[in-house]
Order: sequence, then C-alpha cells, then structure tokens
Amino acid sequence: MSETLQMLPPGSAIGILGTGQLGRMLALAAAPLGFKTHVFGPEADGPATQVADRHFRGAYDDQAALREFAAACHVITYEFENIPADCVRFLTGLRPVHPGVRALEVAQDRLTEKDFINGLKMATAPYVPADTAEGARAAFIALGGKDAIVKTRRLGYDGKGQARVASAEQAVETVARFGVPCILEGIVPFRHEASIIATRGMDGRIEIYDPVDNVHRDGILRETTAPSRLPARAAAEAWRIGGVLLDGLKYVGTMGVELFVLERDRLVVNEIAPRVHNSGHWTLDACAVSQFEQHIRAVAGWPLKPAVRFADCVMENLIGEDMTRWQGLAAEPNAALHLYGKTEARPGRKMGHVNRILPLGRRR
Amino acid sequence: MSETLQMLPPGSAIGILGTGQLGRMLALAAAPLGFKTHVFGPEADGPATQVADRHFRGAYDDQAALREFAAACHVITYEFENIPADCVRFLTGLRPVHPGVRALEVAQDRLTEKDFINGLKMATAPYVPADTAEGARAAFIALGGKDAIVKTRRLGYDGKGQARVASAEQAVETVARFGVPCILEGIVPFRHEASIIATRGMDGRIEIYDPVDNVHRDGILRETTAPSRLPARAAAEAWRIGGVLLDGLKYVGTMGVELFVLERDRLVVNEIAPRVHNSGHWTLDACAVSQFEQHIRAVAGWPLKPAVRFADCVMENLIGEDMTRWQGLAAEPNAALHLYGKTEARPGRKMGHVNRILPLGRRR
Repeated sequence: MSETLQMLPPGSAIGILGTGQLGRMLALAAAPLGFKTHVFGPEADGPATQVADRHFRGAYDDQAALREFAAACHVITYEFENIPADCVRFLTGLRPVHPGVRALEVAQDRLTEKDFINGLKMATAPYVPADTAEGARAAFIALGGKDAIVKTRRLGYDGKGQARVASAEQAVETVARFGVPCILEGIVPFRHEASIIATRGMDGRIEIYDPVDNVHRDGILRETTAPSRLPARAAAEAWRIGGVLLDGLKYVGTMGVELFVLERDRLVVNEIAPRVHNSGHWTLDACAVSQFEQHIRAVAGWPLKPAVRFADCVMENLIGEDMTRWQGLAAEPNAALHLYGKTEARPGRKMGHVNRILPLGRRR
Repeated sequence: MSETLQMLPPGSAIGILGTGQLGRMLALAAAPLGFKTHVFGPEADGPATQVADRHFRGAYDDQAALREFAAACHVITYEFENIPADCVRFLTGLRPVHPGVRALEVAQDRLTEKDFINGLKMATAPYVPADTAEGARAAFIALGGKDAIVKTRRLGYDGKGQARVASAEQAVETVARFGVPCILEGIVPFRHEASIIATRGMDGRIEIYDPVDNVHRDGILRETTAPSRLPARAAAEAWRIGGVLLDGLKYVGTMGVELFVLERDRLVVNEIAPRVHNSGHWTLDACAVSQFEQHIRAVAGWPLKPAVRFADCVMENLIGEDMTRWQGLAAEPNAALHLYGKTEARPGRKMGHVNRILPLGRRR
C-alpha cells in the first residue's frame, strides 16, 4: 500500500537541474505521463527550455533562485553529473531529489568513483591518485612505469581533462598543466567499449536494458549498437554489475555504466554516469519504454516498465557539422531523428542523434 | 531540387492553432525533428501550452494577436476543425497554412462535406439539408419517412449537435431546438465503425496506416483496435478512399476518415477530420512513425516516412473519471500511457489514452 501511496500523481511538476538535451528528452518523456516539467539552469535558453512548462534561470549556487524553483516542483532530478553537490544537498532539504547526492558525489570524483567500484569487488582500470604535479611522478612509477592516462579527478566529460602520458616527466607536466587534483590510470587493453543502461525504482526493483557496444572518436560517443556483440555469459555479467552498482548507491533513476571489454570478454568498469546516458538514446525507438520514461517513472515513485527491446538499433550521434546532413537524414525511411534544438552547430557539439532500426537479430 | 529546397530547416517554429491534446501531441512530435512549437488559442492554458515553446493567447478573430503569432512562425497548422475559416484565411495571407482553408471549409459543414464526398463518387449516408425547422418536414419525407438523424451542419463534435428522430414532427422540433441549419441523415445499418488515418506530403506522396476498428459510446470514441477486422479487399478500398479524399483536397497533413462498415464489408464515409485524429493515437506506440510526426513532416515540407505498423494495438480513451484508475494504468507492464495534463476530470472530457501493444497478428 505504501508503495502506491507515494506515487506522484499526474499533474505534478518534476524539476530538472540543467537545460540540455538530456533534460529535453526527459521533459518529452514526462509529458505523456501527465507531468509538467520545470527546468533550472544558468543559461538564457537551452534545448530543454523549448519543451518545459517553466524555465527558472539562476546559478547553481543562487539559493533564492533554487528555493523558488523547489517551491514549484514536487520532486527534483538532474540531467548531468557536474551539478555542484552543494546545490543538490541544498535542494534535498526542500524537496525529494533523485538520484540522491551520494550518487552524484561518487560520480563527480574519479578517485571516489573507482574506490567505490572496487569496494563492491568489481574491476576498474588500475589507478593511483596524483593530487599534485610532484605526486604524479610516484603515481606513474607505482602504476608500473608504463603508458598511462592522466585524468582530472573532477569535471571531465567527452574526453576533456584527459591526456595520455608515456613518462614520469610527461605525467608531472600534464598534472601541472591541468592544475587540479588528478588520477593516473593504467592503460586497459580493451577490445571494445560497451555500456549498460540500468534503472532502479523507488521500490528497489531494477530494470536493465540489453548491453550495447559503443564507438568513441576524439573522446566523444559516435555510435551505439544494440545489442552488444557480448556473448550471453558476459551480458549477464554486465547486468550483474549494473544491479550491484544501483543497489550499492540505493539509487533511484536511470544510470549509465561504461564498460571496457577485454580479452575473453572480461569486463572492467570505466565510469558511471548518475543520469540518463547518451549510449541509451537507442531505447527511444527500439524499446517499449525509453531510458527517459524509466527515469521519470523512478523519480516519480512509479513502477518501472519491463526494459524490453523489440528491435535491433544503431544510434549515430550527430556532432557539429553532421547537421549539414539534415535533409538526407530527414528523408531516410528507416531513420528516427532526434534533434536537440541547438541553434549553433559548433565543432564537437552534440546536435542530435539518429536511431536506425533493424529487425531483431539483424545486427549480428 | 525544388523539393528539398522547400524543406523547413530544424530550428524553425511551427505554429499550431488550438491548445488541446492534439496540439500537445503535435508539439511533442515536432521537438525531436528540431522544431519549436508556438500555440495560439483563447484559453489561459491548455494541454499544448505545457510543452510548447511559446503560447500566444488571443481570440481567433483578434487580427492583431494573429499577426503577432504569424510573425513568430514559419508555417502554421491547426489541431481542430472548428477554427473559424476566416481565421485560417487571414493567416494564409501571412504564412503558409496547412492543411489549406478548403479542407477546413469542407469539414466544417456536413452538407458541403457530403456533397464533396459524393462528388468524388464515394458513398455517404443518404442526406437532405434542412436549413429551417419547416424544411425538416420535407427532408424527413424525402429521406423515406423512416428514422433519421438530425445533425447541425456546423460545430458538431463528440456526438454533440445530433439527435435521432422517428417522425416528421420530431424532426421539425429538433431542428427548431438546435436553431441552426441542419441536415437529416438516413440511418445507415452499419455492422461496425472503422477509420483510416492518412497523410499527404507537400510533394503529393501519400502514406496511409492500416485501417482500424472503432467503438463509440455516447458519441465519444472509446476504443480503437489496430488492425481493423476488415478483410484485405475492404482494407484496400479504405486505403483507396483515403487517397481519393486527400488528392481531392490537395491536402497537406494528416487526416482522419471515419467509415461505416455495412454488410459484405461495404464502406460508407461518415465524416472527415482535417487534422490528426483520436482513432490514430495508437500509431504513437505501434508504428515506426506516429500520425503526429507524419503531420509535422507534411506541413514542414519534409518527406513522409513509411506508415509501417510493427505491432497490433488496442487504444483505450480515458474519459472523465477513468482517470481515477491512473495508478493501475501506470503499473500495467504493457500499457503505454498518454495523459494530457488536464487538471479537471469533468464527465465526458478526454483526459488521456492508453495504448496496449500486442505482437503482430495477435489481435484477431
């Protein structure tokens, strides 16, 4: 009984921190469930503002603006993991916020994140913290003195705040250049990259989509193929990883988990994203319920739907000048187009994506 | 070349006259194609205003407000057929409007509509105009002196402005009570009701979904089943009817055509709706492209997508107090919910619908 009693009724307002494309697609998924969406962000506009019921403009540390936003919302969520944790902590005192601040804190700091994942007995790349440039030398040696990746502990995304280094000197220089606490990661000899999109409801039930394969270029996701080429045993292991992470965080909402696939299909967790994820955009057209609707259901206390896939799908991200192809894409009979309403097609900017649907089993 | 040149580019604004649920679902379909939606209507709010980029409030005869609206839009469409034709005519001088005013005029007047359909050599119910109460007597006799339906020529919907009569006296009384020009229709001995949802693009290409069966109660659509139980020959005839009507109007956009199915699957056209149609809501979850996206593609000059159905579907309308069942519906694993964001669940009011998906061929 208590489970149904806490379901947010249609007509309620869901608040979203962030006004980007993920917020836009969350708002588009919230509407058919009868929810209004209010979005909050510092920008004058943004993809989500075009489809949200209201847009609250303010900085993430503007407590007066946040208070006004919270007063208009029944529950609050966020669309990206670089929202200051203090902002989410402040809002948590005013309204229910899902996923909780713990998930955000874990995902915001690569060191905390890897400690957390290893604490759950799951593999990550080998890593050593390098809080200072001079610490980078010891870290490089501790990792075995071989090629490594320097990553800023915080605020990295789409390949930003990362650099490969081949010597202790390079490691020192790179950490000095970044000028913030970093970690050094050992190179993982992965065959390919995969991910899973997993949702945990307020009742603790979990739904996970079929694992998918991802192709990155210049640190940006380019293509996702559903299902992954992983054999059944490895897919089951990916599902297990998703479940353990969600339960470990007592997570409520949709999460993306990026995986490296090594020889013999051994899986290593690359990183977790406490939000809907680019590698889950294919669910919009190939599943009975999208990752966005699942997230809204979770944060609204609604039961999740079965994460059933009814087709194979290849998702292509449209980056920057890919948008010049819009006429051809609009004419493709089998392409489901998802554009984000961004006016300026800057290089490296995610402008939209296209889902190409194939009959079940055709992708292999 | 000219065909691609007239495609409306993403980022453009599509104007919609009307702020109801059809406008809401059109706006939700326009967003993934990169379009902004502006809605216009006299109401302070409405289902479409919650998801539209902008809401222009004004009466349909307020030329200053319409002018301001048109200035913000690149193309204009409408979500219901009772928009005054003068309003659409006025806007047509300012911006492209699809479907054109001719389709609106035909659909707004039951006499014009039936004359038009019969002029294309397709069957309707027998009908005789009764512009005045006294004319109703002659009309009743001309129809054969048997039971008939009196319908107002204009502004009828969801069974409003209709009454069955059994005598010339009743016909006279009913037309007098309605107080507006009417027609009398002979009773069509239909076995069941069906409909087709058909779209014509700016290039003249036509896409039509599989015919569906409809169940009405108290004049309001309750349930649509896709596909129809019509045998292949009759389904082909339904497609033909749709094509002839679209071409006859040089129509651009999605149209609903309601059909009566008589003995031996003979089809009679009941009425046409120059807009997306309630009996096409199942396309949201059972087709690669919805009637809403097709409509947006048509009015934007984009090529249509193939109107392919990949599942069977039963659509149930949620009327008035059906909304008290929302918790159960939200928990149904196989139900795709579409609520309209209306706050007050008045009797007879369409609050939402639910699509229940079945594997292809399961419905029969």
